[in-house]
Amino acid sequence: MRVALDVEGGDYAPDVTLAGAKLALAADSNLQLILTGFAEHVEPLAAQHPERVQARATTEVIAMGEHPAEAARSKKDSSIVVGCKLVGDGSAAGFFSAGSTGACMAAALLYIGRIKGISRPIIASVLPSAKGSIVLADVGANADVKPKYLPQFAQMTAAYARAVLGIANPRVGLLNIGEEATKGSQLAQEAYALLKQGCPEFVGNVEGSEIFSGDFDCIITDGFTGNVVLKTIEGASGMLFGELKTVLSANLLRKLAAALVMPGLRNLKKKLSADEVGGAPLLGVQGSCLIGHGSSNAQAIANGILATSRTAQADLPGLIARAIAT
Amino acid sequence: MRVALDVEGGDYAPDVTLAGAKLALAADSNLQLILTGFAEHVEPLAAQHPERVQARATTEVIAMGEHPAEAARSKKDSSIVVGCKLVGDGSAAGFFSAGSTGACMAAALLYIGRIKGISRPIIASVLPSAKGSIVLADVGANADVKPKYLPQFAQMTAAYARAVLGIANPRVGLLNIGEEATKGSQLAQEAYALLKQGCPEFVGNVEGSEIFSGDFDCIITDGFTGNVVLKTIEGASGMLFGELKTVLSANLLRKLAAALVMPGLRNLKKKLSADEVGGAPLLGVQGSCLIGHGSSNAQAIANGILATSRTAQADLPGLIARAIAT
Repeated sequence: MRVALDVEGGDYAPDVTLAGAKLALAADSNLQLILTGFAEHVEPLAAQHPERVQARATTEVIAMGEHPAEAARSKKDSSIVVGCKLVGDGSAAGFFSAGSTGACMAAALLYIGRIKGISRPIIASVLPSAKGSIVLADVGANADVKPKYLPQFAQMTAAYARAVLGIANPRVGLLNIGEEATKGSQLAQEAYALLKQGCPEFVGNVEGSEIFSGDFDCIITDGFTGNVVLKTIEGASGMLFGELKTVLSANLLRKLAAALVMPGLRNLKKKLSADEVGGAPLLGVQGSCLIGHGSSNAQAIANGILATSRTAQADLPGLIARAIAT
Repeated sequence: MRVALDVEGGDYAPDVTLAGAKLALAADSNLQLILTGFAEHVEPLAAQHPERVQARATTEVIAMGEHPAEAARSKKDSSIVVGCKLVGDGSAAGFFSAGSTGACMAAALLYIGRIKGISRPIIASVLPSAKGSIVLADVGANADVKPKYLPQFAQMTAAYARAVLGIANPRVGLLNIGEEATKGSQLAQEAYALLKQGCPEFVGNVEGSEIFSGDFDCIITDGFTGNVVLKTIEGASGMLFGELKTVLSANLLRKLAAALVMPGLRNLKKKLSADEVGGAPLLGVQGSCLIGHGSSNAQAIANGILATSRTAQADLPGLIARAIAT
């Protein structure tokens, strides 16, 4: 499986992206990489592994703050645009970047294209939880959506859960502010009716407090609410772990006790870390594109590359196309 | 200050509501209560404290699952409706209930009324955080809102933060999916422009990850997003504390260590518990109404009663009326 990697993406590029590439190559002997990025960053690793790594030198980079669509259109020789083009022309089976999510989505739409019949591609996030992974979408591609888009959101996330997470019968919930069909915004009420009608995976509304209940594998919502929820979980966890640190270092006795529980806490933090799940898939585009967190470390980059490879192997676009055709 | 208390509200009524009433009476010697609820529940405490407690026996109760507006209209002799009527006719300065939030809002609108000039009253939630309290609103009164409502949401939450939380210069943020004015849904973009123009307390957009940053005192959004965010924080914290418990009881050594850090953890849980802040104020109605969590314990009920009394003392409706008149 050949995957394109944006070597310039993420807060710690290119050191961390190159280190992640090496970890991924070591973990999967069938993996091949095409590195996009500045010549001096991508050529040395390609020279080291000529059979498995190709360099595709680029001269531009899209920064995190740039307008996604404009940047994807104008910076044609950027590591993100070239990575997407490699997928678009069939040179690579998938693309992974820890750069601007918006620019990756814009470039994927421009240079890879939508799956025929998909109204709105989405960005999904795979949330780690105590009871297994949860797919949350849309987390930002579409700030405003129409009710009729939601059934496709359900089909796309269910296809991902089945093909990549190995969940045979994914249960899809609609994020809402009550359990009943008549609860919520106009959007949520109309979407509920459409999902109930036409989506066998739909099991009902899910409230914010039930996201981690284990009763839902996929949680769908508009891109505004999904993005706010994703970042709220991040903020609340960060605040709690920060407070916990303060509690555990309050005095000498607690510091001693903390040393005893630290391995367990470190495991917990790892288990709940977004780094472990390998990135946010773009669903609804004609290729396998995953986006990592900007703060990804080398292991997170490696996990992202491997998840991109698995997603490509599963032929996710083909599965989604068949799901919406039925 | 005379406050009406819904003795039938909450999961553990009437035992816990009556115990909370006693705690509140002991904590504030100027407090007087009017208890609404079934005669056998409200009369004994009134008989014990004839100078400070009145019983106002009611024959109906509104259950959590009932349609709020219908129940508020039809169950005229329920503990919630009668409590609101006592505020409406001036017999009580405020009303506290741990019952159905929706029914309380509906009853408050019907029997107390909106503040003149307020388009949409809101439910605010006071979030405990490491860096002080945060007012989040709307958390559920208005699932669909128009951009023009948001400036009033800002004024109402800022007035509450000033009068009840003692924050002299509250900083109001608009919940959004990016920092820039051009980010977010159409609603968020239009609301941003209106807030920028006409609201001196407005300091900009706040992302989900920044809710607990300490940079914002009031965070405003539509009632759908606010409710989802509030419950997501609840769900994420519950999941984390649950996982933490598992980590701390994994083996004998950790159990010993856990015993050493437990007082600190208990304090942390208390500090971050919604029970401590005393309930969610209804803002924009012509009286001081606060709603407690259904799972409130006696201390949470007492805190809610005391917060209702403080809110009434501050004449919050008067402050809001003056704020929107300027």
